[in-house]
Amino acid sequence: MPARPITFLSDYGYEDEFAGACRAVIARIAPEAPLIDLTHGVPAGDVRRGALALADALPFAPDGVHLAVVDPGVGTARPAIAVRAAAADRILVGPDNGLLWPALERFGGPAGAVEVSASPFRLEPVSATFHGRDLFAPVAARLALGAALDEAGDPLDPASLKRLELPAARVDAGRVVAEVVAVDRFGNASLSATPEHLGLRAGERTVVEAGGEGHETPLATTFGDVEEGKTLLYLTSSGRLALAVNRGSAAEALGLGVGDEVVIRR
Amino acid sequence: MPARPITFLSDYGYEDEFAGACRAVIARIAPEAPLIDLTHGVPAGDVRRGALALADALPFAPDGVHLAVVDPGVGTARPAIAVRAAAADRILVGPDNGLLWPALERFGGPAGAVEVSASPFRLEPVSATFHGRDLFAPVAARLALGAALDEAGDPLDPASLKRLELPAARVDAGRVVAEVVAVDRFGNASLSATPEHLGLRAGERTVVEAGGEGHETPLATTFGDVEEGKTLLYLTSSGRLALAVNRGSAAEALGLGVGDEVVIRR
Amino acid sequence: MPARPITFLSDYGYEDEFAGACRAVIARIAPEAPLIDLTHGVPAGDVRRGALALADALPFAPDGVHLAVVDPGVGTARPAIAVRAAAADRILVGPDNGLLWPALERFGGPAGAVEVSASPFRLEPVSATFHGRDLFAPVAARLALGAALDEAGDPLDPASLKRLELPAARVDAGRVVAEVVAVDRFGNASLSATPEHLGLRAGERTVVEAGGEGHETPLATTFGDVEEGKTLLYLTSSGRLALAVNRGSAAEALGLGVGDEVVIRR
Repeated sequence: MPARPITFLSDYGYEDEFAGACRAVIARIAPEAPLIDLTHGVPAGDVRRGALALADALPFAPDGVHLAVVDPGVGTARPAIAVRAAAADRILVGPDNGLLWPALERFGGPAGAVEVSASPFRLEPVSATFHGRDLFAPVAARLALGAALDEAGDPLDPASLKRLELPAARVDAGRVVAEVVAVDRFGNASLSATPEHLGLRAGERTVVEAGGEGHETPLATTFGDVEEGKTLLYLTSSGRLALAVNRGSAAEALGLGVGDEVVIRR
Repeated sequence: MPARPITFLSDYGYEDEFAGACRAVIARIAPEAPLIDLTHGVPAGDVRRGALALADALPFAPDGVHLAVVDPGVGTARPAIAVRAAAADRILVGPDNGLLWPALERFGGPAGAVEVSASPFRLEPVSATFHGRDLFAPVAARLALGAALDEAGDPLDPASLKRLELPAARVDAGRVVAEVVAVDRFGNASLSATPEHLGLRAGERTVVEAGGEGHETPLATTFGDVEEGKTLLYLTSSGRLALAVNRGSAAEALGLGVGDEVVIRR
Repeated sequence: MPARPITFLSDYGYEDEFAGACRAVIARIAPEAPLIDLTHGVPAGDVRRGALALADALPFAPDGVHLAVVDPGVGTARPAIAVRAAAADRILVGPDNGLLWPALERFGGPAGAVEVSASPFRLEPVSATFHGRDLFAPVAARLALGAALDEAGDPLDPASLKRLELPAARVDAGRVVAEVVAVDRFGNASLSATPEHLGLRAGERTVVEAGGEGHETPLATTFGDVEEGKTLLYLTSSGRLALAVNRGSAAEALGLGVGDEVVIRR
């Protein structure tokens, strides 16, 4: 059996050698396993943002092993897990803090799980603060080589896994009250709302209230549907509504950050 | 036929999973194709900077498929293209907004082109705002697997491709008036001028006017040819003249940014 | 003989195509050699920080060729080297400015070295300012393909190699006076001190003087051993003492930067 692909997402950033040390561990144990970096730029400790990025990217990745580490509780009692998805041939590896949950849901939920803190695959000694390198990367690498899930750790009830509840939008008197769940590099602000919340159709005009101000904003298809510098509402490639400014930054123009409330009305 | 190498350049940045999602798509379609990330740190929407980086890096890459996405007009009527170079066994894939042009010129110009917006290789449904993932990456992956160019889309007249004119320096009364075309991580400022504009030889002294001030500046070979903190003019590894400060930042010291005018005289 | 793995660390950053151009060169010469990026985010020109990152990551990498470029003296008389380690099957390639030294020490010191400035493996013409692309990358690639060290350049006495002395902590009247040697993405500040300097045991309380103030700080095992927002002293995964704030930034909270003095006492 050839080695399976491993995807890798973390909040280790790009300044330090942390992601590189994990890649080194994987290359040492499973040199034949293709390694696909998803991103290491998740904001430090931001489990929810990491979970969204993982859930959005993984459906496009090949079946295999999915390593993800955003782990502000590293070294504490939070379980360290490897989980098999129910509806796809994928195993997710990382801390049990909700990071893996939205991605798992996209693959039918968990079908089996193990706690890997004392995994026979870990590197000894396991440091208390770098489980990515000493625990998660070697476990992912051995699973990619074909090890069975139950060799990787101790059985864990999948029902005990930590879930991550994403903020829900609420519909209230014809208005949708949503939350900014992510701001991307281009200043586009993803919302906790979908077009269904609004019953809107492309081209319809809405008013978006953000930062105390109302903005006339069409539900557009793409950025260039409005003039340069104008605000638009659009459906992201992940199925969420988002605010953008054509050739500009919605986050800057509207003063929006993660967690801010946005109201959309007709 | 083994899969061909794919290079990948974009302005997707490192905070988000965008480049990672494209890598995932490629790994899924063409798992055997070597993937070479050139950079994903092109400033957001900066087609010219992306074009320069691409043209500077590609001559050092192996023959193959070159994926590049800096695409502020994503989802609008701008064509999406795959182009075969005339003088090298290379196919470039990306938006037709000038991004690919300077690199194409280095490889003898375009020998054939197709419009890939309705490519049979695209992922369905194609999102309106993430053509890197849904259109360009799968097209590049299938071409790397050996698909013929004309299978990837509809014929397009290569003469219709969007060109990118880089700013030219002008020589005026013994002075060269140039423009800053890029500032790199080290604060070195590349100019739209070559040594030929000046007829200078290494070691000759010049006066560089930037930000309203004149600076005595030798045409040096490398940074260490001047004292620490001193300004120098040098020939970049891409053949352009550039301003640097030994162990410092020319952009900071001289207050220079992209688009600023710089005058060089003897 | 299959191609050997190449690790790659630099200060080229992520905005420019510099690291990508080196990857391209390697893919062209040694397409079968696995390439493991350690990091390219070493602060520009910071040889010591690069040396620490390299020494910390390499023990986790497979045997092979280790390319590292943090080279503020590029193009000057500083030697360009390839060095074989005495106690492991590893060859390090880079500028001879101390960057490779701490990693070499971890592998038993140098067993043989060559000066590669005029290497037959270099790309012609060698630019004066981009030796990563024109000199170090092709030399590393050819060594990964199995070239002998003495084919890569001219013999060099290993005793002549530039050493890098890391700052040492001093023990003074029951206090340890240390220096901040690195601040990572999470704001954790690594010190030039080890637990042996202090004779401390986990759980013991200490007082840390930093930025003119004293902070009661336990020697903890991991971040979560103290309340959120509280300071702790811990042993990094690289064996150094470091200051952290649980779910916060020690560098910010204590006003610490690289080179700052920190005093630890009971």
